[in-house]
Amino acid sequence: MNDPNSADKKFQKELNAGIVSLVLLNVLGRADEPTYGYQIAREIETVRENLPIMKQGAFYPVLRSLENSGLLESTVEPSVSGPPRRYYRITGAGREALERWTTIWQETRNFVDSILKGI
Amino acid sequence: MNDPNSADKKFQKELNAGIVSLVLLNVLGRADEPTYGYQIAREIETVRENLPIMKQGAFYPVLRSLENSGLLESTVEPSVSGPPRRYYRITGAGREALERWTTIWQETRNFVDSILKGI
Repeated sequence: MNDPNSADKKFQKELNAGIVSLVLLNVLGRADEPTYGYQIAREIETVRENLPIMKQGAFYPVLRSLENSGLLESTVEPSVSGPPRRYYRITGAGREALERWTTIWQETRNFVDSILKGI
Repeated sequence: MNDPNSADKKFQKELNAGIVSLVLLNVLGRADEPTYGYQIAREIETVRENLPIMKQGAFYPVLRSLENSGLLESTVEPSVSGPPRRYYRITGAGREALERWTTIWQETRNFVDSILKGI
């Protein structure tokens, strides 16, 4: 496995694994109403276009996992223009997790930045 | 899985997965000589004491994985005070990966911070 691309992809994938959960929880924490996958993706794209690190397809398993953990809840609604859509909303436990995870993120970010600065 | 601790642990574990590789590569990139696991852990502890997110035991599989990717190389040397120690040093490919991964980290960090600010 001496291909640099392969090691880089592994690194990016691992780095994203936790981040996707935090990002999705945050976007749903700010949503005024239940939101489906494509709307979440559009919201994230307004922050950064053509973002290689956040592919829409990667959202769905994470949304399901957050729901299994009780941090989101969802309902399926028919759509006039295609297949039914699953709408997600954050739960009370989700808002509490978002607060804790934001702190965990900030501590982790500061730690990594300190290491990279060689302090 | 409605236990908050369990969801928090999963988040922290996922968040750490990529970060440990970057941190280890960075510490070895700054080392003047081949370094073994306990020395790396001590170096990291100088940045933050009692760091819950970086357990020394978590380093070893990551060091092996980085070596398998050709980013580190190692030799085993006898120790006067205990079992033989495996000393790691960064390779040329490792230095190149460290540069690319630092950029990936900075982009990812800025993206997450933008999302958290609600921009």
